[in-house]
Parts: sequence; structure tokens; C-alpha cells
Amino acid sequence: MLSLELLLAIVVPIIGLALAGYNASSVLRIQPGKKELTEINMLIAEGGKTFLMREYKTILPTGVVLTILIWAAYYVIFRSGLMAGLAALSFALGAIGSAVAGYLGMYVTTRSAAKTAWMGKYGMGPALSTSFKAGTVMGLSLASIALLIVTVLYMAYSSILPTPLWAEALAPVAFGASLISLFIRVAGGIYTKAADWGADIVGKVEAGIPEDDPRNPGVIADNVGDNVGDCAGMASDVYESFVVVLAGALLLAAVFRLATNLIVLSIILATLTLIGTLVGVQVVRGEVKGKDLAAAAMGKLNLALYTTIIVSAILVAIYSFMTFPLMEATAIFVSDLLGMITAIVVLFATEYFTHYTFPPVRNIARQAVLSASNVIVAGYSYGLLSAIPTIFMVVAALGISYVLGSMFIPPYGVEGGIFGTAVASVGLLSLAGIVISLDSYGPVSDNANGLVEMTGMDEVRDVTDPLDAIGNTFKATTKGYAIASAGLAALILFIGFIYEVVERMGIPLVQAFGELMVIDPRIIIGALIGVALVYFFSSRTLASVGKAAGELVEEIRRQFRTKRILELWPQEKPDYNRAIDIVTRHALKNFLVPGLSAVIVPIVVGLALGWIGLVGTIFGVILAGFPRALLMANAGGAWDNAKKYIEIEGIEVNGQKFGKKSEPHKNAVVGDVVGDPFKDTTGPSLNPLIKVVNTVSIVFAPVIAMVSLINPAAGPLIMHLISILMA
Amino acid sequence: MLSLELLLAIVVPIIGLALAGYNASSVLRIQPGKKELTEINMLIAEGGKTFLMREYKTILPTGVVLTILIWAAYYVIFRSGLMAGLAALSFALGAIGSAVAGYLGMYVTTRSAAKTAWMGKYGMGPALSTSFKAGTVMGLSLASIALLIVTVLYMAYSSILPTPLWAEALAPVAFGASLISLFIRVAGGIYTKAADWGADIVGKVEAGIPEDDPRNPGVIADNVGDNVGDCAGMASDVYESFVVVLAGALLLAAVFRLATNLIVLSIILATLTLIGTLVGVQVVRGEVKGKDLAAAAMGKLNLALYTTIIVSAILVAIYSFMTFPLMEATAIFVSDLLGMITAIVVLFATEYFTHYTFPPVRNIARQAVLSASNVIVAGYSYGLLSAIPTIFMVVAALGISYVLGSMFIPPYGVEGGIFGTAVASVGLLSLAGIVISLDSYGPVSDNANGLVEMTGMDEVRDVTDPLDAIGNTFKATTKGYAIASAGLAALILFIGFIYEVVERMGIPLVQAFGELMVIDPRIIIGALIGVALVYFFSSRTLASVGKAAGELVEEIRRQFRTKRILELWPQEKPDYNRAIDIVTRHALKNFLVPGLSAVIVPIVVGLALGWIGLVGTIFGVILAGFPRALLMANAGGAWDNAKKYIEIEGIEVNGQKFGKKSEPHKNAVVGDVVGDPFKDTTGPSLNPLIKVVNTVSIVFAPVIAMVSLINPAAGPLIMHLISILMA
Repeated sequence: MLSLELLLAIVVPIIGLALAGYNASSVLRIQPGKKELTEINMLIAEGGKTFLMREYKTILPTGVVLTILIWAAYYVIFRSGLMAGLAALSFALGAIGSAVAGYLGMYVTTRSAAKTAWMGKYGMGPALSTSFKAGTVMGLSLASIALLIVTVLYMAYSSILPTPLWAEALAPVAFGASLISLFIRVAGGIYTKAADWGADIVGKVEAGIPEDDPRNPGVIADNVGDNVGDCAGMASDVYESFVVVLAGALLLAAVFRLATNLIVLSIILATLTLIGTLVGVQVVRGEVKGKDLAAAAMGKLNLALYTTIIVSAILVAIYSFMTFPLMEATAIFVSDLLGMITAIVVLFATEYFTHYTFPPVRNIARQAVLSASNVIVAGYSYGLLSAIPTIFMVVAALGISYVLGSMFIPPYGVEGGIFGTAVASVGLLSLAGIVISLDSYGPVSDNANGLVEMTGMDEVRDVTDPLDAIGNTFKATTKGYAIASAGLAALILFIGFIYEVVERMGIPLVQAFGELMVIDPRIIIGALIGVALVYFFSSRTLASVGKAAGELVEEIRRQFRTKRILELWPQEKPDYNRAIDIVTRHALKNFLVPGLSAVIVPIVVGLALGWIGLVGTIFGVILAGFPRALLMANAGGAWDNAKKYIEIEGIEVNGQKFGKKSEPHKNAVVGDVVGDPFKDTTGPSLNPLIKVVNTVSIVFAPVIAMVSLINPAAGPLIMHLISILMA
Repeated sequence: MLSLELLLAIVVPIIGLALAGYNASSVLRIQPGKKELTEINMLIAEGGKTFLMREYKTILPTGVVLTILIWAAYYVIFRSGLMAGLAALSFALGAIGSAVAGYLGMYVTTRSAAKTAWMGKYGMGPALSTSFKAGTVMGLSLASIALLIVTVLYMAYSSILPTPLWAEALAPVAFGASLISLFIRVAGGIYTKAADWGADIVGKVEAGIPEDDPRNPGVIADNVGDNVGDCAGMASDVYESFVVVLAGALLLAAVFRLATNLIVLSIILATLTLIGTLVGVQVVRGEVKGKDLAAAAMGKLNLALYTTIIVSAILVAIYSFMTFPLMEATAIFVSDLLGMITAIVVLFATEYFTHYTFPPVRNIARQAVLSASNVIVAGYSYGLLSAIPTIFMVVAALGISYVLGSMFIPPYGVEGGIFGTAVASVGLLSLAGIVISLDSYGPVSDNANGLVEMTGMDEVRDVTDPLDAIGNTFKATTKGYAIASAGLAALILFIGFIYEVVERMGIPLVQAFGELMVIDPRIIIGALIGVALVYFFSSRTLASVGKAAGELVEEIRRQFRTKRILELWPQEKPDYNRAIDIVTRHALKNFLVPGLSAVIVPIVVGLALGWIGLVGTIFGVILAGFPRALLMANAGGAWDNAKKYIEIEGIEVNGQKFGKKSEPHKNAVVGDVVGDPFKDTTGPSLNPLIKVVNTVSIVFAPVIAMVSLINPAAGPLIMHLISILMA
């Protein structure tokens, strides 16, 4: 099974990991000449480690139980110790890969803020390349590890199991990735905003000390939160989507019994784009000059993205046209390119709706002159609108790649069409490496600027201020990328789930599809349950932030009271770790209900309403969750920047000018604070939700297929029970 | 075709109209002994008339164009002048019925506030029965007119056309009702909140005069708005749902070729419940005594609802068991009852999440101690949660009635099941008369209390204050009823649309359903477009309020400046009508884009992606719109009452008490103002949206079926075009 292409799919990610290691060591080697920088930075780094370690420790028992459960389920269904063992292994590797990539990335990014701040002394060029290099450690690690794991599993499994069994044994890798991502996105999302709110309430509001004051016991927890959300959270989320899309494309190719060169296509396309990424990240080096330093730095980062896309597109074109007949190659190339174009469109649409160089944020800011309520309504209204371009781009990519695939990719028709959409999804996700590099650069530059402020290194603010601002833009826009990725990943796996169930039930496709009609009451009821799950999950994650923040507030008040830090500083120092520990604990506690509901609801629906009902639920979750994620992330980003716009440029209404600390600014702050849990807790948490309902369904698909077969006429157990009761 | 039952279905609504007329004259006959009361009241009444008349005038050309279009479409498809004429007639009658019921109801309710205020002098009993009688004029008129029109059309059409042609000719009656409802809900929703915001911004904020100060040129516009939203808007919405459900049930029964006694069943059930309603409304009379006047009055109103339900249930039971075999009768009775139970559950769930005697609103109020942002996040979070009980009740009603129908209603199976769900929907909607009576009582008592305040009749406040408070509760809870009704109505018509297209295309059901699989890319893409439509529509209606309010602000400022009302009052009086006219005009202008999109998107999708794509779009609109309406209405209601809770009872946190004008109260006001367009503009506008996509689809179903037939293999025109281009 080892071809030249597959060899490449192993070698390239190893090179990717090597480059990540090289970049890491070259950043970590930098020794800032100012001791305080490193000291405070290490507090954040240690805090980040504490958080991740506690998360992993909490996940471990869950992961072990699920591994055993998967083993048992596969053993019962397939009556094969080999299948059961491989499925369990896939699940474990998917989870471990995510955990390792997250740990490595966080390790470097949290330690790089001080280095970046220090390099600011040498100008924009060195500071930019330092922080971006730190970001690439996360980006390259996760893309390489995801690709490597899937490739190795594919090569190993397909050499010992027949088609499509190897794909079914491989599929749980996606659920493993989901598990970690669900924990980090939801618990991490609650953590980051609870720390933010809690520290602000006691610090800024009650004690009247500045935002980043080291006397505040919650201040390190707050800084850790930035890394948790924007770095570990985003990375685990996109890693998950990447793994989901690769595993989903393999599964579809396997159950469709496609030709071998189509089966490995998704792996190859991802490999070629990883090569493009390795080229693209090289662009960000050397001096940054010009009158507008920010624009020049922004240009370099954008150049990295476009270089990646162009190099990748050329490689994909060469490969496609060398390997496939003309029209088939065209269909593949165009679909892959459509995925990459989707990334560009979504990044731009997100920027348009969340950055203050464009009308939406400016209009929201102007509403602040009227009242805080106007700010909220305007931001919410633009948030709703902002979902539309991304939805339409996804619709266009799906529609065109489907039509092309159904006409030109054998076996043509429905299956060729679906495979075409899988290729488009691979195109989007294969950019994960470069996009996460750009995203992870954000928290590094953000923390660097924070350190500069705390240590009074005013001389480098000309460098770190614009660096921070650009980082904020990328943090916001990459959220759109993550959501679009989650949406496409979920759709691919959704279709994969249906084919997998049909495969397991052994019924003809035509019969199965006849049952899947949209007006089947099980589909309608299932879909309404799916929508209700999204609403429940959103409500509980939003409410959790306040609860966990309340616990931190108590702790900070207690420390102020018992240790009298405000009076005795710097002799008496706050216990930062205790604060981190408390927020982490309560974030995990509050994670339980929404987190469990995401895993349990699909299983319960599958058992009670049969696979048809579950199809409805998945569909409902995707339809309700995907646009809601866009709404919440973008409204939050827009409120945030409307406030910043008033601070930085000010607004002028009827000849009067309003800036920081004005009444309109206070109104904008109300929107900003509302936006915090919107954009950093609930919005991002919806990404793993829409994927985990799919991954958990696909893992338990064999079981659900068996249960649905018990009563093939009615399907759902519940109707079976009713008919027994009525008889 | 004239049976005893059908005769009843004509006589009972006529009695209903007669009772409405009697109640109207007995309320209008009351002559308040205080001239000012009547004078101010007449300003509001005239304003309401101005608004409605301008709406109707705007609708007229649209209605005429649509009538001609429907005539032409039916003529082309059916090649029958009779079919075309009857279809156009149905459409016109549906619209005219809604307009007449709305006009009559508004005429009486807007004139009854002064009467109610005056009767307050004689105690709670007379005041309550006066305002409730005024409410019954709207409730009884709309229920009677809807039932009468559908019955007469059914009897006439079914005697001259074969099955199912009569049902297809009748179906446009639902689109007629939709058209009026769309205008009044959306334009009216924008109007009411724009008037509210605009009057407050210049009056309360800029000029510093009280809320209901007659010197404010916007004050009458604001009061008119209350009637427009809670009275005309709600009534046209529920009228629409009622007509949709009756027409939908008839259409399903016709295309299923059910037995005659099942075809007329929905009409009979609605008639029996109208009898129950006529009995139920009698309960609210005589003295209201007791220590707690509010509780006693509330008890009487609730008693009216429960009397209606019990009498109706008994009548339905008697009819069912006399007419149908035991198990079939049980299925029908239980399904109808389930619909009525849905009403009770939804009313209670709405009250739980929006009234301050329950934990959610109290928790939101307590968040006001922290910040306005906390109020917003808490209210939004509860709003999300509040959708779940209603969704689950709808799911339960659908699921149980489907199972019962599929087992016991001939022809059993899918069609019996679907008909069972139609019976449950009829059960819910047949309560429209009593529910709208309770709802319309709200604005009457609200305005009465306003008049009492403006004219300084402090001696009756002990009566009008609790009357107003109860009215507010019913205004909030009946919103939940309207949304659940819209959801069920839309689902019935959605299924009706599919069967209608299949009927028209003449393809076998099995083949059609095989095409309707949920993973067909046209379904998925269509559904995403449907969700995008809901987001677009919500965003634009929210944004419109601010724009229209801005215009009113300019006008009020202009009047203050040019006429110097504040200084010269009462010699110089404001031009109230100009203010009303301006808000109406701009509300209608801003209605255009969202309103048109609701009508045009389904047609465009149907032509471009074929009927399969349109099925996806309708499904997406229902799934996204129905829970969103609940979220927005309930979050808005909860914010409103959190503010009122602080005003009335105050909140105590850490031993400190906060009431009106405290900092927490100001924070709660932020939530209240955000909630205004949520609960009174966008939330209610989503009801006609989810119905109009269905009614427009069903009217143009014959055309869409024909277009879909042009290319039976691929279905959608767009794919046809692509395949031509590629060839």
C-alpha cells in the first residue's frame, strides 16, 4: 500500500514537526535582558500548564471509559478482537494527538511573549518574526500531527483489513479529537471569560486598581485565559475539524468503494497544502519597513497566507492533472481550490463585520451616542447579518463541488457529488497549519503588549501596539475560519454517518434513502430536538460564565481580606495559582451539563427514535449551531471593536467628539462585556458541539444500526414499545 | 354537501359575530363622565385608524397584483377559468377577512380604554368585564370570520369541483391571510417600537418631560403602537395560523382522499370549540371580590380559558365517539385534546420565563446589581432556555398524534399519522377566539391605565393598576401561544406543500419521497438558504426600528423648535397625526426589504433549485425561525419584567435594597430597551415569516411542480443550465 505519494504524506508532516521544533528552539533561545519580563511571563506559562494539566487529568478517566466502551461496542457488533482493538486505538490516538499538539503549542506560545517584547527593541521585523515563529509551532504541530496520525492509521489498517472495515476502524480517531476539543473549547471558554469577568469585577470595579495590576490575584488567571481560548481552544477545534474531514473523506471513499487513487486523495491534497504551508511561513522574516508599520506587518502575514494558497494550488493542479483524466482532474482541482477560496472569503467577511475600518463596527459605535441598548441591538443585528456571506460561500462551495463531482468523478451521480464536496472540505481544512499559525501569533503579541505595559517598557510600544492590533484582527477572523471548518466537517461526517449506518444495516441504499425523507415525523421531531440541544447548550454555557466568575470573585475578595495585599504589596503577594485552580475547577464543573448533553443526546435519540431520528437531530444541530456560532462570534467581535474604535479614533456626532471615558464609551463597554461570553465561550463552543454529535454518532453507528434493525418496519424502539403497549 | 354539522359550522360563527357585535355595542354605549378621558382616547383611536388605513392602502395594490398573478398562474397550469377564478377569490377573501376582523377589533379596543377607566369608578367587576368584553370583539370576530370563510369556501368549491381540485382552489385563502399578517406584524412591529423609542429619546431623554406627556408630539403615536402590536398584530397573526391550519387540514384530507367525515373534521372540531368559547367568555361578569383583587380578576380570566377548554373537550368527545369507531374516535379526541393541552403548557411556560413571580426573571433582576451587561447575558441565556419546553411540547403533541393517527385513522400509516398531527394543530388553533380575547384585553387595560394617569383620576388606580398588570401577563403569554401556533401551522402546510407538488407532478409518492432524502444537496443547500433568510429577516427588522425611530426623532425636534410647544402649551398643540404619519410611512418603507424577501426567496429557490430545494428552504426557515421567535419574545418579556420587578418589589443583595432610579434599575432599563424590538418587532415578525414561506409556496406549487418537471432527472433548473453549459 506504500506509494510515493503516501511516503510523502509521512515525510512532509515529519518535516513540519521538525520545522516547528526548530522555530520553537530559536524563539525559546532568546534571552530578554529585562528580568521582570521573564518572571511575569513564567507565571502565565505556569498557569497555562496548570490549566491544561488539570483538563487532561479530568479527561483521562472519561477517555479511558470511552476507550473501553468503544472497544466493547465494536467487539459486540463485529465479533472481532482486531476491529475492537483498532477502533479503540484510533480513538485514543485521536485524543492523544490533540493533547500533544495543544501542549507543545501552548508551551511555546505562553513562553514567547517576553521574547517578543524584548525583540521589540530591535524593531518591528524581529518582533514580528519572533511572535509569528511562536505561532507556527502551534500551527505546524497540529497540522502535521493530524495528517501523520491519519496517514499512518490508514496505511496500517488498510493493509490488514478489507474495505470498508479499515475505514470503520479508523473513524473513532475523529471522536478522540472531538473529546479533547469539547473539553478545551467549552471548559476553556468558560474559564477564560470567568477569569476575565471575575478579575475585573473585584479589581477594576470594587478595588479601583488598573486592569493588569499584579496585586490582583486573578490577573494571571485572566492572562492564562487569553492563551487558553485563542491558542489551545482554537487549535484543538481546528485540529478536530481537520481530523474529522480526513477521516470522513476516507470513510466515504471506502463505503463508496472508490478507486485507490481517490481513496488516498484527501491525504495527498492535505500533504501538498502542508508543503505550501512550509513555504508560506518562510515569508515572514527580515525587516519590516515603511511609513505605516502596522500595514507593512499585516501585509507580510497576509502574504504568508496567499503564498501558501498559491503554492498549494499549483502543486494540487500538477498532481491532479498528472494523475487523473482531464475532466476528473479539473473537478478535483476546482473543488479543492473552492475550499481554499472559502477560507479567504470567510476571513474577509469576518474582518468586514468585526473590524472598525469597515462600516458595521463604525455604525455600532455611533449608536453608543444614543444608549447602551442601541449598541446591543445594532451589534446583534449585524451579527445576524454577518452569518450570511459565510453561509452563502459554504452553499456555493458545496453546490459547485457537488455538481462537478457528480458529473466527472467516478462513480459519478450522488456518490461522485458527495465526494466532490469532501474534496472542497479538505481544501478548506488543509489550510489549518497556516491559519492556526496566524491565529496563535495573536495571543503572543497580545501578552507581549501586556508585559510591556506591566514592566513599563514604553520605548517598544511603537512596535508592540500595532503588533497587538494585528493579532486581534487575526484572532477575530480565524474564528470565522474555525466555524466554517466546523460546519463543513460536520456536514461531511453527517453524510458519512448515514452511509455507515446503511452499510452496517446491510439494507439497499434506495430503501434507506426512501426512509430518510424530510417529512418523516422522526426526522422532523429529531431535528426539533437537535435545535433544542443547541439552545440548551448555548444557554448553559452562557450562564456558566457568571457562575464560575462568582467563585473567583469570592476568592479574590478573600485574598484581599486575609492577606491585605493592597496595603502590604509587594511584601505580601497574591496566590495566583489558587485563583487559577478555582476558576479551572469551576469551569470544569460547569462544563459537565452542557458537555455531557452533547455526547448523550445523540445516543439517546439514536436508541429511542432509531437512526432516522438521529439523522434529524444531527441535521437540526448543524442548521441551528453553525449560523449561531457565526452570529455570536461576530457580534462579540464587533462590540469589542466598537469600543476600541471609540478609544482609538473616537466618534463624532453632530460636531461633538467622544472618546475614552465619555458616556458613549461607557455604553460601548456594555456591548463589549456582553460580547465576551458570546465570542469567547458560547460561540466557539458550538464548533465542537456540531462536530461531536457527528463523531459520537459515527462511533456508535454500528450499535444504532443494530438497534434500528430490531424493528425494521417502524425503526424506532419507542414506536415498537408503543405498539406492544397498545396491542 | 350540506350536513347538520356543516350547517352548525355556519350558524355558530354567525352567533359568534352577533355576540361580538352585542359586546361591542354594550361597551361603546358607556359614556364616561369625564370629557378628557374620551378626548385623549379618541386621539388614540383616530391614530389607530390612520395607521390601519395607510397599511391597507399600501397592501391594496400588492394584493391586486398578487390576485392577478394567482389567477394567471392557475389559469396556465389548470387551463380552467373556473379554477383560476376560484383560487383568486380564495386569496382575496383570506386577505379581506383578516383586514375586516382587524379593523373591527381595533375599532372597539382603541375606543374602550376610556370606558374601562370610567367603569373603574364602579369597582373591579365592571372594569374587568368592560375591558374583557372589548377584547372579545377582536377574539370572537377573528375566529368566527376565519371559520366562516373556510366553511363557505369549502361547501361552495366542493360542490362544483372534484377532489382534490376544490382544496387546491381553496388553498390560496391562507396566502391571503399571510399577506395581511406579514404587513401588520412586520410594518406594525417596526412602527410600534420606532414610536416608542422615538418619543422616549426626545421626550424623556432630551426634553426631560414624563413618558406620557401630551406635549410630546410622539405620545399618541406611541399609544397607537401598543394597540397595533398587541391587538391588530397578534390578531392578524393568529387569524392567519387558524386559516392556515384549516386550509392545510382540508388540503391534506383532499389529497389523501380521506372519507368525507374526516375531510370536514377540522371544520367541525373548530366549530365545537367555538361553541366552547361562546360559553367560556360568559364567565367573566359580575362582581370581583376578595382581598387580592388582582388574583381574583386573574382567576376569572383563567376560568374563562379553562371553561372553554372543558366544554370544548366534552363536545369533541361526544361528537367523536358518536361519529367514529371507538379507536378512531379515541385517536381524534386525544389528538385534539393534545392541541389544547399544548396551549396550556405553552402559556404556562411563557409565564414561567417572563413573569417575576418565578425564578428566571428574579435572577435576571439580581444580575442588575453587577452591570447592564450581566442583565443582557442572563436574559439572553434564559431566553434560549425558554424555547425548550415549547419545542418539547410541540414534539410530544406531534409524535403522539402521529402514532395514534397512523394506527387508528384510516388509511392509517403515514397519511393517517400526518392527519393525526393536523387534528392536534386544529385543537391548538381552535382556541384562537378565547386566547385573542384574553390578549386584546391587555392593550385596553394598558391604555385605560395610561388615560387614568394622564387625566389624574387617582381614585381608580386601585382598580386599573392590577388590571393593567394582568393585561401585561396575558400579552406576554399569548405571544408564546401565537408562536407555537405559527410553528404547527407551518409544519402542517409544509407537509401539505409536498403532497400538493407530488399531486401536481403526477409522480408516484414513493418516487417523490425517495427524492426527498435529507442528504440530497438541494435539501441541505435549500435548508441553509432558509436559515440565512431567517437571519437576514431578523437582522433587517431589528435594524429598521432604529432607522424609523430616527425619523420620528427629527420630526419631534422640528415640532418643538418651530411650534415652541413646550413653552406655549396648551395654546400651541403638537401635530400628533403628522408624527403618526411619519412613523407609519417609514415603518412601511423599512418593511419592504424584509417583507419582500419573505415572499420572493421561496419563489426564487423553487425556480432555481426545484421543489426539492424549496422543501429544504421551508424546513430551514421553520427550524431556525420557530425557536428564534420564542427566544426573542421571551427574552424581551423577561427583561421587561426584570425592570418592573425592581420597580415594584425591589431587589435585595447583601442586605442592600435597590428600587426605582437606583443604579441596578438603570442597568435593568438597558435590558428592557433591548427587549423592546426583540419582543415586539422581530420576535413576532418571525411568525408570519415561517408561515408565508409556506403559503407562498403552496400557492405557486403548481408552477414550481411544472418547472421541476421540465428536467425530471436533475430537477432543478440551475443544474439543467449547468449541464447545458458544460455540454
